[in-house]
Amino acid sequence: MSAATLISPEALPRGFRFAAVKAGIKPSGKPDFAVAVAEKTASAAAMFTANRVQAAPIVVGRRHLERSAGLMRVVAVNAGNANCATGEAGVKAAEQVCAAAAKTFDCEGHEVFPSSTGIIGVPLPAEKLVAALPGIKKALAANVDGFAAFAEAILTTDTRAKVAHGTVQAGENTVRIAGVCKGAGMIGPQMVPASAPLHATMLVYLFTDAAIHPVAMERYLRAAVEVSFNRISIDGDTSTNDTVLMMASGASGADVWAEDAAFAEALTRVCTSLAKQIVSDGEGVTHLVELQVEGAASDADAVKIAKAIANSPLVKTAWAGADPNWGRLMAAAGYSGAEIDPEELAIWFGTLPICAKGGRAAQYDEKAAHAYLEQREYAIRIVVGAGAGRCTFWTCDLTAEYVHINADYST
Amino acid sequence: MSAATLISPEALPRGFRFAAVKAGIKPSGKPDFAVAVAEKTASAAAMFTANRVQAAPIVVGRRHLERSAGLMRVVAVNAGNANCATGEAGVKAAEQVCAAAAKTFDCEGHEVFPSSTGIIGVPLPAEKLVAALPGIKKALAANVDGFAAFAEAILTTDTRAKVAHGTVQAGENTVRIAGVCKGAGMIGPQMVPASAPLHATMLVYLFTDAAIHPVAMERYLRAAVEVSFNRISIDGDTSTNDTVLMMASGASGADVWAEDAAFAEALTRVCTSLAKQIVSDGEGVTHLVELQVEGAASDADAVKIAKAIANSPLVKTAWAGADPNWGRLMAAAGYSGAEIDPEELAIWFGTLPICAKGGRAAQYDEKAAHAYLEQREYAIRIVVGAGAGRCTFWTCDLTAEYVHINADYST
Repeated sequence: MSAATLISPEALPRGFRFAAVKAGIKPSGKPDFAVAVAEKTASAAAMFTANRVQAAPIVVGRRHLERSAGLMRVVAVNAGNANCATGEAGVKAAEQVCAAAAKTFDCEGHEVFPSSTGIIGVPLPAEKLVAALPGIKKALAANVDGFAAFAEAILTTDTRAKVAHGTVQAGENTVRIAGVCKGAGMIGPQMVPASAPLHATMLVYLFTDAAIHPVAMERYLRAAVEVSFNRISIDGDTSTNDTVLMMASGASGADVWAEDAAFAEALTRVCTSLAKQIVSDGEGVTHLVELQVEGAASDADAVKIAKAIANSPLVKTAWAGADPNWGRLMAAAGYSGAEIDPEELAIWFGTLPICAKGGRAAQYDEKAAHAYLEQREYAIRIVVGAGAGRCTFWTCDLTAEYVHINADYST
Repeated sequence: MSAATLISPEALPRGFRFAAVKAGIKPSGKPDFAVAVAEKTASAAAMFTANRVQAAPIVVGRRHLERSAGLMRVVAVNAGNANCATGEAGVKAAEQVCAAAAKTFDCEGHEVFPSSTGIIGVPLPAEKLVAALPGIKKALAANVDGFAAFAEAILTTDTRAKVAHGTVQAGENTVRIAGVCKGAGMIGPQMVPASAPLHATMLVYLFTDAAIHPVAMERYLRAAVEVSFNRISIDGDTSTNDTVLMMASGASGADVWAEDAAFAEALTRVCTSLAKQIVSDGEGVTHLVELQVEGAASDADAVKIAKAIANSPLVKTAWAGADPNWGRLMAAAGYSGAEIDPEELAIWFGTLPICAKGGRAAQYDEKAAHAYLEQREYAIRIVVGAGAGRCTFWTCDLTAEYVHINADYST
């Protein structure tokens, strides 16, 4: 994919340079080490996985955000090795990469934010990343090619780079937001703020040239993540490395320190686009499904129902076969733990009535239902009759290809 | 399979007659209606699914157990249609079958316990079951052929009948316990006593010729189910129809009214054998895995960890490929919601050390680990360093065959 199809020069946030190189971590030999460098110190905020097993880069990233009070210069991401379950040695390896990057890019070690994705339990060869830094420094560029190289290098089992962007007018100035992410398996994020306990194979980097205080940024980020990355599931497996990092350079000259609705909305749009791209490019995925849960006792209950449906192997395999077996949706709603009124439960596939009052809808048309589910993307609406809680959630089918990708093992 | 390989005449509990016929519910045309009739009124206790969506036979079965104060004569099971999400008409259909069975077998309608398994959301053709009753009555036999016919007729996607039995000496008398069950998909039981809220594609029928008061029986049953059927998962999907019914004829002449440890143990052994048979015959299963979780903050936390591992698509697909990717086990333990100490986490495959102190074990031997996982049955021990809580749990791999079985749809 050419860089120009990912983002235009006009859309690229000012104040950042990007690059990626081959450090020799990925067995494929593809670029696997990506760096973004802010020209000046940038505001930063992050959210991490809620998994109690935390990869070393998450431990180090949190520590650096705290020590720098949310002011970062560099993000350094390697793919091919998660640096997780690697003990104290893993933390030292991450610190070693940060220290070397700080020296290379002329900042403090705690102004470097590390990320890793890939296999768990294998020591990170920090020396390979350190050795690659001079090459990265030479390659750094404040242009779409650098950005595209960054987007490519962080991928693992993904089949394509994932980028989204938006602009907001702030007075005379245009503020740019651009995001890049990776993730195709072990996707069931439960992101919590950096200030709370944590756990990532979903990696997301959001760049903006707005000026934002780190504390305000965490608020923007938390709200946007809650309705985007925390509303997707491929396999329900919450990774040990999930990370969403946002950096604001201020280079646009516009500040969004206060609660700026337009900025919040643009950020949410970028996050939602990235979240849906992750599901759409999920391992073996042939259908992208938007679940619209309504009538739950609370929004939290609506999410419980969506997650139970999204993570049910029986529902997901039915989708793989375009099988309108709605009883499986109902069963999943029933064991979700959410309050539901089975007698009031209703299901629509798009505008097709499928289930009404807890039973087969009078207008149920199996052929039409099957045809609807043959589309690559579609929406399913579930009304559970318990209140006014609702959510939108994106998920996918479970195919034999997913099994092959994750079961194939060669010594 | 011949009846004699399932159970011997000596092991068959006295006081029951069994039969099964073809009622025309299964599209395959195989026997699909099974009945057991106690010669005299038998004590009965049941546990049902915790799913909030409850199939009609569960609503009716609970009602009958209440009305009869736990005294039953007949259990009538159809396979091929779950009679779930069928509304008030479904309840009436179940009642109609019970009323007809009561007439046929000369008892009260509320002395008949109905069960259904099969597709959800399709009206139950009660008239077919009613029409089959005279044929069943003729076929009833207090012998192993009748019992085997019962065991075969209740199957759906199972590949084989599942039977277990045991005997206990009670003074001069021998007490017999025999169980039969079905279930191959939608298996993630959460069984609760009949006296609590409920939801079944796992059907279990336990027969004994001991004399037991219904209240004492519920105690025996609850304890046995908790460490057997509530400790298995194929796909984590908790069905709308899961039912465990136990009936005691008293025909052995021995009573176990008090807390009889030998009886409790024999019952638990029968239930555990049946539970493991269900997993072993799970849809597309090629590996039966015994999880031994230790060092949890509580037994409940140990079960949380086992369930997270057992239901993780990434863990299950790794097992399908005999891939010793232990990081996936660790990640699942981490997001289970249970308290764990990642720095103390240890994993063994049988006696092979895999992970120690949260990292790769020094003696880790990938080749040996892979070879171990190539066995059809094996044990994985996970120690989480948070306390003295423990559990044993049985689960299986997730294969492409599972996907095919559940995705194949033909209009």
